[in-house]
Amino acid sequence: MKKYAIGIDVGGTNLKGVVMDRNGRCRHLSRIPTEADKGGKKVLENILSLIGTLIEKEGTKKDILGIGIGTPGFVDAKGVISAAKNLPGWEGTNVYKPIQKRFGLPATAGNDVTVATLAESRYGAGQGVQNLVCLALGTGIGGGIVTNGQLYKGTFGMAGELGHISVETNGVPCNCGVKGCVECYASATGIVRTALELCRGLPPDRQTSFSRLAAAQPHTITSKIVYDYVKQNDPAAGAVNEMVCDKLARIIGIIVNALSPDRIILGGGVMMAGQVIIDTTAKYVPRYCFEAIWRHCELVIAQCGENAGVLGAAQLVFEDLAGKNIQKSN
Amino acid sequence: MKKYAIGIDVGGTNLKGVVMDRNGRCRHLSRIPTEADKGGKKVLENILSLIGTLIEKEGTKKDILGIGIGTPGFVDAKGVISAAKNLPGWEGTNVYKPIQKRFGLPATAGNDVTVATLAESRYGAGQGVQNLVCLALGTGIGGGIVTNGQLYKGTFGMAGELGHISVETNGVPCNCGVKGCVECYASATGIVRTALELCRGLPPDRQTSFSRLAAAQPHTITSKIVYDYVKQNDPAAGAVNEMVCDKLARIIGIIVNALSPDRIILGGGVMMAGQVIIDTTAKYVPRYCFEAIWRHCELVIAQCGENAGVLGAAQLVFEDLAGKNIQKSN
Repeated sequence: MKKYAIGIDVGGTNLKGVVMDRNGRCRHLSRIPTEADKGGKKVLENILSLIGTLIEKEGTKKDILGIGIGTPGFVDAKGVISAAKNLPGWEGTNVYKPIQKRFGLPATAGNDVTVATLAESRYGAGQGVQNLVCLALGTGIGGGIVTNGQLYKGTFGMAGELGHISVETNGVPCNCGVKGCVECYASATGIVRTALELCRGLPPDRQTSFSRLAAAQPHTITSKIVYDYVKQNDPAAGAVNEMVCDKLARIIGIIVNALSPDRIILGGGVMMAGQVIIDTTAKYVPRYCFEAIWRHCELVIAQCGENAGVLGAAQLVFEDLAGKNIQKSN
Repeated sequence: MKKYAIGIDVGGTNLKGVVMDRNGRCRHLSRIPTEADKGGKKVLENILSLIGTLIEKEGTKKDILGIGIGTPGFVDAKGVISAAKNLPGWEGTNVYKPIQKRFGLPATAGNDVTVATLAESRYGAGQGVQNLVCLALGTGIGGGIVTNGQLYKGTFGMAGELGHISVETNGVPCNCGVKGCVECYASATGIVRTALELCRGLPPDRQTSFSRLAAAQPHTITSKIVYDYVKQNDPAAGAVNEMVCDKLARIIGIIVNALSPDRIILGGGVMMAGQVIIDTTAKYVPRYCFEAIWRHCELVIAQCGENAGVLGAAQLVFEDLAGKNIQKSN
């Protein structure tokens, strides 16, 4: 039984790569620029080069079961990327073939949040439960689902677009075409938009340090700054937090009623704010689902941090490729 | 390997029972009144009596692997029923123990729509795909989910409450406490409510045969009557259909983005109306989800009909109890 897997996390700025063992321990970690601006062909070349570096560090590929890739967008059964908005030219790329050709190793792949969910399930905040959902609150909102103990990717690698579920029927128009997607309110971008809108509407007698900053320098506001002020008990920032968490509670209510997960894990850059988001959101969830189902669900913070993607990509190798005839896939 | 399973479908009016083989073929079918008004203890006694009748018909229980129950509400891992609103006194009943005690056979159980989903997956409209969702449009709306080829019940048997997902933020208050649940619009009850409301608002010059009937005899209107008029091209009934299907499209959009199922199966009494609901709904779905995901999803009518519940309950035996140590569970 081959002991190691290589995982690659395709980010907008950097490619991260890891050689991981079957216990989730990282043997080697490398990082190089994605060079997304140079097009999909260059991104692929950089991925192959990173895999080469990792094999070199390992000294041999005889113990490597295969290569797993986590990428923005969707990956179909043949390894072809689609809907990767942030990486121009990356769409349409087949990632399996060149890996098999260059290294004689089989490959598997999945959406970056989907594979990060697998990492949380096996090595992070999802350990010990069979059914869970992750929400990654970053620039956008992505989702990942584990059912009956298995990662659920959907037949075409497209499951888990939980950021694009409407929580406000006549809400903010989302760039996906739907109105009121939770991404418009509770992603980093959505939090800033919500904050600026709320501060614009404040009467003079309710201005706060935060609202004055938002009015004076709107372009400097980030979700981190919003939550810095939340922690200082700034009332305007606090009101933003309540609005954001109410919207988060709605998507969580939908997830609870639909999937009754044992655990819902919140991750992504926004969750640097920590427990305040969990606590505020948990307060609102019972408004939006059956309390009997919610009672069986824990709302927790992700644990794998920035390496969730790369660890999940490697883990995908053990779960997707183990037991498959490796010769056949060459 | 034991060849047969007994399935019991607990309905508000009747208990249905079946002895089924591993190919979904029905060997014996029986039906007796539930007698729900006589309380949970009587319902349980009737179930045991029905099982006895089926074993008698079979002549021996040596080929029976176990008993599967489909019931309103939720069933936990120990076989205890909860949230079965329509069956007073049925909540809190443990269904596994008395079956094991009386017949020496192991039992398994699930929500009625959940087990009907299993029947559709194995013997009906869901054959040949790994990932699907059923929506049962009856008095209420129930849901069932199959992921990675397996029935997804959730750890506590509570998954699939898809009727109670809000599709209208400030919509009709649902009896579950949430506003705008799809059940308020697209269940049989919801369709009638929508129809009466729409007809009340019609100006005199837009009255139709249907709206006049709805005004004169509101208590006689059923979802069947609405759709009889839809088929006669009555404009008011047609407008009801568009409203109902727009709401159905919203929940389907949520399901598509969240789960990317290969197929969504619509069943239940409302679907006696047939293809008109599928066609009207399919027209609206792209407004509410990613078209790239929807393109991979088929929207179809259920095929197992009224026996979906009882066949699914029997099928659950083969999938939940096969491979388990039967001695141990006695």
